This record gives sequence, C-alpha cells and structure tokens, in this order.
Amino acid sequence: MRRFLVTIEYIGTNYNGFQLQKNKALKTVEDELNKALKQVFLCDIKVIASGRLDAGVHSKNLKAHFDVESSIKVEKVANAINHFLPEDISIIEAVEVSLNFHARYSVKQKTYEYTMYVSEHRHAILDIFAKQLYVMPDVLLMQKASEYLLGTHDFSSFMNKNSSIKSTTRTIKRINFEQKDNVITMSICGNGFLYNMVRIIMGTLLNVGYGKTKPEEIKTILEKKDRKYAGKMVEAKGLSLTLVEY
Amino acid sequence: MRRFLVTIEYIGTNYNGFQLQKNKALKTVEDELNKALKQVFLCDIKVIASGRLDAGVHSKNLKAHFDVESSIKVEKVANAINHFLPEDISIIEAVEVSLNFHARYSVKQKTYEYTMYVSEHRHAILDIFAKQLYVMPDVLLMQKASEYLLGTHDFSSFMNKNSSIKSTTRTIKRINFEQKDNVITMSICGNGFLYNMVRIIMGTLLNVGYGKTKPEEIKTILEKKDRKYAGKMVEAKGLSLTLVEY
Repeated sequence: MRRFLVTIEYIGTNYNGFQLQKNKALKTVEDELNKALKQVFLCDIKVIASGRLDAGVHSKNLKAHFDVESSIKVEKVANAINHFLPEDISIIEAVEVSLNFHARYSVKQKTYEYTMYVSEHRHAILDIFAKQLYVMPDVLLMQKASEYLLGTHDFSSFMNKNSSIKSTTRTIKRINFEQKDNVITMSICGNGFLYNMVRIIMGTLLNVGYGKTKPEEIKTILEKKDRKYAGKMVEAKGLSLTLVEY
Repeated sequence: MRRFLVTIEYIGTNYNGFQLQKNKALKTVEDELNKALKQVFLCDIKVIASGRLDAGVHSKNLKAHFDVESSIKVEKVANAINHFLPEDISIIEAVEVSLNFHARYSVKQKTYEYTMYVSEHRHAILDIFAKQLYVMPDVLLMQKASEYLLGTHDFSSFMNKNSSIKSTTRTIKRINFEQKDNVITMSICGNGFLYNMVRIIMGTLLNVGYGKTKPEEIKTILEKKDRKYAGKMVEAKGLSLTLVEY
C-alpha cells in the first residue's frame, strides 16, 4: 500500500464545501475527488483532508492523503487525477508520503486569507473571491485590534456551535492586513481554527474598522467566551485557505 | 438627450466576446448590456463601446457610452444597470459626458495585460485568467525583445485578417513584464491594437522566452509585414483589457 499527499486548489463557489454531505444532492469537492480517484485507480478510494472547508470558501492549498495499491509513478499522479476533475477543482502537487503521515493529524499550522474590495458598485471579477465593502474601513485600526487575538486563547467567543469539539483553545501566530488600492486582505495563521472562526474574527475586526468597536474591546470579547459578544460572521466567498504546513 | 459613459468589468469565459453577433444564439456582453438598459430605461438603447473584445477575453475597464432621455441621477446609473446584469458582468463606474464625447473615437490609449502561470499541473483558480506554461521562459529576454516593438510601426506581421481596416500602423508606448513567483504578466499600452495583435505579440515573445527566436529577430519579423513570420496566437483567457484612457 502506498500513501499519496495531494495539494488541492479549487473555486468554492459551486460547491457545498469540501466534506461529503449526508444529503447526496449537495455537490462537494470531496465527492468529486473520490469519483476522480475511482476513475484513475479503478477502485473505491476515500481521501482524508487536512480539514473541512465551508460552502463557498476557496482553496489554494488544501492537503489530502489517500492510500492505494498501485505502481503509478508519483510524477503522473496529479495530471492523472486532474484529467477526471471538473474545471474548478485541481491537484497542483502530488507527493508520496510514509504510511505514518496523516493529512489531518500531522498539520502544524494553517493560513487563511480574507479578501475585501471597497466600491459602491459590484465588480464582476473581484466579486468571485472578495467581499464587497461600500466604505473604506480603518485598516491600521483593524491591524492594531488584531494584536489582542495573537497567542493562545479560548476562542469560544469567535466560534459558531459545532457538533464535535474537544477544546476551544487555539493559537494564532500572525494576523496581517494588507491594502492595495481598493483591495484589503487579512492573512491569519494559526495552529487550527474553530468552526467559522476566521469569518467571525473578520466581522468583529470590521466593526473596529468602522468605529463601532474599539481595538481594546477585542480583549474583553475574547474574555467573555460567549459568541454573542463578537461581531457578525462575514460571507464565505472572501475566504481562501492559502497554506497548510506540516 | 443625455450621454452616459460606463466602465465595464466582466469575466469573458462564458461570452462570445463583447460585440453583438449576427448569430443570435451566441451570447455576447453587448447583448446583456442592451437588455439590462432596456429594463432600466424601458426603451431600446444601444451601447457604443471603446472597441471590440474577442471571445474569452476579460475586461477590467472597457468603456461604453449610451444616450437616453431620462432624469435619473448619475450616481444611481451603475447600480440600476447592475441590478439587471448577470453576475459575471458589472458596471463599476458611470459618469455623464457631453454629446461630443464618443467612447470609441475619443480613445487616446489602451492597456492590456496577458497573464501566464508556470506549472506542470493545472491550477483551478489561476486558470480562469491565465495561460498555463509548463516551463519557465526567460522573462528578461522577452522584455528585451519587446523593445523592438515600441514606437510607431506597421504591425501587419502581428495581425490576423480582419474585414474592415483602414491602416495597419499603430503606436506601442510601453511593454512591461512582471514576474511574481510562478505568475508572469505582460502589460502593453498603445494607441490602438489590430485584430488579435496582443495575443500574436505574446506568442512571438514566448518564442523568444523559450530560445526559439532571438530578440533581434523581432525587428525582422516586424519589417516583413507578413503574418506568417510571427509566432502563434496565444489563447484568449490570459488576456484582459485593463485600462482605456481618453
């Protein structure tokens, strides 16, 4: 048995997230991958991903492993699978790993980006991967407020309810805001993220950017450990998983 | 009568170019705009664009004007039209201009960008707006070769046959190559471009980047004034109109 680790880039717009759904009518990226693997290797194979991605979220770097009995050359794996994937999903890299390696449990840290553009009017191109803002927020103030989130904390205030969760403690290593013309990007790196955590953090920091919340109030919201104190969750389409590191 | 000038951003993937086609089964951006204008102003209006865009080419900045008897406030125009446009077409700006202004005849210069990414494997996200290259070309050599194209020349060698053309002389003001990681962008600015000219220039410069053509041979190709000496036309999806200036 051999184990392959693949890096997946996809446009989330037309999928109900990565993970297989009980409701088979909902199209998921995982289902498309499993179907492509069956076409390539002629047997049932189930991928194990580095984590879930919600409906509408994009991926530049999701990782997944799968096991197969095959003599395929590793450099042929990506193109072979791509041949059977729809246009909006692609394998951008494939490597062979040891059977001890696990795409989910071996993750050290992940980086997400949340992108927004400021315009009174919808921009057809920007709109695929970014949230529209109508007024420019104070980016420096958002950067300042984000510093209260760095380090290891109980992020209960920044989590929507989820079924199975062992701990609500996570470590955020870095949050960076970048502005280029009318496009603002928040990059956030941590050892893991709770359900909807990045989108709730983004919504809460936007309140700071618009003067509704003071930067130092982020500390209080964190300490409350209660979802109702944080801001609204922003929409999925602005969010991309950009790096998974082992 | 009032004249409005609108700036149009659209994703060309699903359209048979900008311009209305005799074959009504072919979807065009112009047709979508005219239909949206009819919904807003309740009469037949035909837009006059800054120029044509081929099937599959994208626009960040196409300009078009239209005339209408209406008391609409100019700041309402963009959103009113956007309301009736499909998701992949948008008006990002609308201004009122004098009846002497003409979206096509008043153009001073246009800028196009051609984007490519280097990877053995297809990248689902990059692939919407960029051509895939399998091997990194020599970008500095392409930049050097491009200098032979600057200035005013007869660009017959870099034009596919077109029906109505008065002159094949055009002025190229600037060509810049940029490389960021595995993404290469050529930006080209001129007073106008012949049919398929940017895509033929890109194909010819790629031959230089891969060592098939020497930089100084660009001068000879230009002087031949014959299409057969230039390189292959590259595919449309890497091309975006990024600026139209008056």
